[in-house]
Amino acid sequence: MSKHSAQLATLSTPCLVLDEARMTRNIDRLADRARSLGVTLRPHLKTGKSVDVARRVLADANGPATVSTLAEAETFAAAGMNDITYAVGIAPNKLDRVVALRQGGCDLAVVLDSVAQAEAVAAASRDSGQCIPAFIEIDSDGHRGGLLSGDPALIIIGRILHDNGAELRGVLTHAGESYGAVGAQAQAVFAEMERAATVAAAQTLRAAGLPCPVVSVGSTPTAHAATDLTGVTELRAGVYTFFDLVMTGIEVCTLDDIALSVLTTVIGHQSERGWIMVDAGWMALSRDRGTAAQALDQGYGVVCDVDGNVLDELIIVQANQEHGVIACRPGSNRRLPEFAIGTQLRLLPNHACATAAQHGFYNVLPIAEDAPLMEWPRFGGW
Amino acid sequence: MSKHSAQLATLSTPCLVLDEARMTRNIDRLADRARSLGVTLRPHLKTGKSVDVARRVLADANGPATVSTLAEAETFAAAGMNDITYAVGIAPNKLDRVVALRQGGCDLAVVLDSVAQAEAVAAASRDSGQCIPAFIEIDSDGHRGGLLSGDPALIIIGRILHDNGAELRGVLTHAGESYGAVGAQAQAVFAEMERAATVAAAQTLRAAGLPCPVVSVGSTPTAHAATDLTGVTELRAGVYTFFDLVMTGIEVCTLDDIALSVLTTVIGHQSERGWIMVDAGWMALSRDRGTAAQALDQGYGVVCDVDGNVLDELIIVQANQEHGVIACRPGSNRRLPEFAIGTQLRLLPNHACATAAQHGFYNVLPIAEDAPLMEWPRFGGW
Repeated sequence: MSKHSAQLATLSTPCLVLDEARMTRNIDRLADRARSLGVTLRPHLKTGKSVDVARRVLADANGPATVSTLAEAETFAAAGMNDITYAVGIAPNKLDRVVALRQGGCDLAVVLDSVAQAEAVAAASRDSGQCIPAFIEIDSDGHRGGLLSGDPALIIIGRILHDNGAELRGVLTHAGESYGAVGAQAQAVFAEMERAATVAAAQTLRAAGLPCPVVSVGSTPTAHAATDLTGVTELRAGVYTFFDLVMTGIEVCTLDDIALSVLTTVIGHQSERGWIMVDAGWMALSRDRGTAAQALDQGYGVVCDVDGNVLDELIIVQANQEHGVIACRPGSNRRLPEFAIGTQLRLLPNHACATAAQHGFYNVLPIAEDAPLMEWPRFGGW
Repeated sequence: MSKHSAQLATLSTPCLVLDEARMTRNIDRLADRARSLGVTLRPHLKTGKSVDVARRVLADANGPATVSTLAEAETFAAAGMNDITYAVGIAPNKLDRVVALRQGGCDLAVVLDSVAQAEAVAAASRDSGQCIPAFIEIDSDGHRGGLLSGDPALIIIGRILHDNGAELRGVLTHAGESYGAVGAQAQAVFAEMERAATVAAAQTLRAAGLPCPVVSVGSTPTAHAATDLTGVTELRAGVYTFFDLVMTGIEVCTLDDIALSVLTTVIGHQSERGWIMVDAGWMALSRDRGTAAQALDQGYGVVCDVDGNVLDELIIVQANQEHGVIACRPGSNRRLPEFAIGTQLRLLPNHACATAAQHGFYNVLPIAEDAPLMEWPRFGGW
């Protein structure tokens, strides 16, 4: 048992364990890629939702950063981060909070894809005297929101923003469908779709005499697979900070890269059914079953020993609110190991964003083996 | 638009809305049943995780209550509740917290189903001078943990507790498989399985000269379907306080009984795909897809107008972290309504426990139409 495992033994379970060495390796990997691709990296902070994680993932103390809620923007701005893109389509009744953040000194930008939103942003800009910067969202893969790069609404929206008191900061896309592509070659196709769609949209806006200084693309799979980002100025990605089983399943990372796990304790056995009961159910793991549609279904998570070594064939096959059931993977001929009541284990999550969101803090295994565990708070809400 | 809808218009979305009138009706319904069945009702507080909800659901200010985490026990004990059963198999390293709660004046009981746990509870009882009460968990339907009622370990465990400083308080079961039974008749079969298994186990213990004062059964479906609880002393249930789409799908309640919803705002349209985008994704709704295996798959939730009226055929068909996609139910020939950007809607959840857990507080619609909205905090953690 390592020194860290002895420290974990003192924790009440279930709880999050974050491996700082793995996290740092993941952060460095994408920072190096962004540098070699010649683009700014604007990490998405929605995975960590933690000032401590943000300080380590951002290029400098202040940004640039991406967030998914105004609660994130407010928390990170209060911690001094002043260059933030709120990357969910803006609702008009949230603009007062956007204005307040900008008045407090944070360069907060919003995202939109409709005339109604652009008019609301322009009106809020005029009313507040804050020239609110907005990105027009581009649909590069049919995943969710955004305009097609050839949509005539692009120029109409751009003009509403530019001519009426707001700022047209650029175009932005997210290839969410790349999560279904396995391997770097397939993911590079989505990266090129992101690039082509946003660069075309930027050219359309510029040809109409409108500014488009920022061309923003990204998702964790495309960010790691892109080979050419000509015309793109910035790259966004989030879950790469921790990685997870979904990303492992599509070959963006390996199990050894997953920095987040849930520490759990054995609380029972149902030997005739081949089950070991633990105290981490879906409340601790989340209900995310993102690997269900992948080639290797990992149930509710992969089981490791307390030191983080993967225990072959063992997964969480079933989860109730506060109970998880460990069993051998369907079809396995491994014999179920005997873990005494009270044994601690660690579970790798399907989706780091979803699992982390179930908890109030991280127990951090520091890089130095001799250093004590750290506790980093995280937050939720909107 | 009702007065309450005008008040909801001031809230930042997504957020929880709790309808106090519906909640009160649900609480009264099961309290009446328990009275007529001649058993004590010990509500499970894991759904609400709120002192305000607990005060309304408990028979008196102090209990009796059931919890799923020691964090719940600690929070409710601090609020004065002093009769609590922690209904998840006890891990030995949690017994110091159990002892501390008991020393603070809370009659906290634990649950177990193994010799190792019983020995740990007995040792902690002797070490602390606190006679820790324990229930032996009984498996009535193959759902999860527990001993079969005829298992010889029953008496061995009972004796370890009784003879070594702990208290054998009784037997307890939960027919989790009843969630898969549709209709009161099918659920009554599980209620009878709960009754038969626990009463048999109690008789075995008593025949061996051991005490078994409490015989505890329950789940929301079985609690509402049971017709005869002879030999049972108490009934547990939790999600009935709020109800949800899973309970509607198995006919324990109707859509009109669901007291919990998520308030959301329209943030975009993808008309060609038949999609309306809202700002409630799985972070606000949870990843629970409990209706997926039911006759009527409700996606990630049923769409209502801001007053809570169900909009026929509209469900959340897809959810990303902070985006939900509203569309007509597959196979529907309804035309998608046009909701302007900024329109507020309410979403009924698949599973109230999971959805509520994503939020930090409830916005409560009070029974009186003229009264202002209330804000009730909720908590998480372990």
